[in-house]
Amino acid sequence: MQKIESIQAMQQWARSVQRDGKRIALVPTMGFLHEGHLSLIRLAHEQADRVVVSLFVNPKQFGPNEDYDRYPRDYARDQQLLEAEQVDALFCPSAEEMYTPGHSVYVEEDAVSRVLEGESRPGHFRGVLTVVAKLFLAVQPDLAVFGRKDAQQLYLIRKMARELNFPIAIVAGPTVREPDGLALSSRNAYLAGTAREQAATLHRALKEALRLYREGERNAYRLRKVMMDMVLAASEAEMDYIEIVDTATFTPVTTVQGPALALLAVRFGSTRLIDNMELTAEDAP
Amino acid sequence: MQKIESIQAMQQWARSVQRDGKRIALVPTMGFLHEGHLSLIRLAHEQADRVVVSLFVNPKQFGPNEDYDRYPRDYARDQQLLEAEQVDALFCPSAEEMYTPGHSVYVEEDAVSRVLEGESRPGHFRGVLTVVAKLFLAVQPDLAVFGRKDAQQLYLIRKMARELNFPIAIVAGPTVREPDGLALSSRNAYLAGTAREQAATLHRALKEALRLYREGERNAYRLRKVMMDMVLAASEAEMDYIEIVDTATFTPVTTVQGPALALLAVRFGSTRLIDNMELTAEDAP
Repeated sequence: MQKIESIQAMQQWARSVQRDGKRIALVPTMGFLHEGHLSLIRLAHEQADRVVVSLFVNPKQFGPNEDYDRYPRDYARDQQLLEAEQVDALFCPSAEEMYTPGHSVYVEEDAVSRVLEGESRPGHFRGVLTVVAKLFLAVQPDLAVFGRKDAQQLYLIRKMARELNFPIAIVAGPTVREPDGLALSSRNAYLAGTAREQAATLHRALKEALRLYREGERNAYRLRKVMMDMVLAASEAEMDYIEIVDTATFTPVTTVQGPALALLAVRFGSTRLIDNMELTAEDAP
Repeated sequence: MQKIESIQAMQQWARSVQRDGKRIALVPTMGFLHEGHLSLIRLAHEQADRVVVSLFVNPKQFGPNEDYDRYPRDYARDQQLLEAEQVDALFCPSAEEMYTPGHSVYVEEDAVSRVLEGESRPGHFRGVLTVVAKLFLAVQPDLAVFGRKDAQQLYLIRKMARELNFPIAIVAGPTVREPDGLALSSRNAYLAGTAREQAATLHRALKEALRLYREGERNAYRLRKVMMDMVLAASEAEMDYIEIVDTATFTPVTTVQGPALALLAVRFGSTRLIDNMELTAEDAP
């Protein structure tokens, strides 16, 4: 595995790989890797000749009161995991390499980035879209793989890729879960004791909404109410939002008519967890 | 000359040219071409194997009260001029091809885009940076050529290319002028009668500032005052701004110490003209 720290060296590596007619897949990460990331890397291997993983804890996507400084990091372990997955190149620029002093150019989205995660975390998606645009231009991949757990992020990255003309296919990987249903996340490391047990309620609530949907419930208010009651039964849970959105527009619906996504964000102490589920008639194959 | 109207076809053309090891230069224009554009095309030919000219009157960089609808267009003449300059490809997408319904992703700059042109034309640079990013990603050039007349635009495009990691060299072409010094601009077509004559005062004022600078004047207020008096002596001129900025930061200076740029924007009726001059000890060779 090549370890590459500068943007210019990354672009040179990509150019020489592409001159050989090889397709590159990028898997962007903030490190502290778990099975969720590894599943995206395996998906990347299936669809490309060379896999690049980026590891960059992006300061611009954390708010002033968020966990940038304490975000979990374990570089040595990450490197071992990536070697074992036969990743071809690890792109791990420093914050100084990615953001020079006086940095003032951003990619912004004007509508969907303002709601849900965007409302709870002002500036978050501006930071995400900017760093993903920079990673796309540094790595020049043919495709890039993102997890479905961050559903709104995935939606906005697809929108950015399409609207700015990035010639990059965006591939979505399924959410990987603990045995009790908790979606894997680097932030799960913050959860201890009863909070960890109670965190499984997010997925249980989403599954219950799916069950009711499949029994014919189409009223978004009632579906949300059932999820809310289940989540708030967990004594340490504080609700951030529960919403059902149209999959195509990411705007809330009152009646579920077409493809829809149930989304929730819940705090356990200072740890904020998100999860989501597609409301579909049948399980995906 | 290949005429290309879709983003996807443009990207395919670029990919096949680059597979042959050829370098591509892009010259972005809004059409209604004049000698200024043609000089940029000749510069592009000197530095690349293939030259792409884009012709797109970008609605997103015009304010609600600006001249998008009446912006001069002469597609047939433009095409002839480009054929004569041996341009390899003309990229001329429709507004619908460039902006699909619900478009909401933009490239923004947070500091320099707010002053001078940005203050007079809110949203202008957001539109410029967004369309240039889209053109860069559609055409995938190795270098792109912009005119020095739009000095703040040039500054912001360089900043965007650097800060978003575009692997594209930004080349600046000199301003081409009428015999009386008026900088060539498609908007000069709006000027009639005495306004056209009086418009030459912009360049005369800038030349006078340069003369005083070379005689040792370093006080920006006095340099601006001399330019202001000269411009306002033209009976139809209305001042928008006169400023002297540091070339490296594009922020106004009170004393000219390092490399600086004198900038002005003047209205003649509803026609707004801009021009600028580098304050240097010697003429560039």
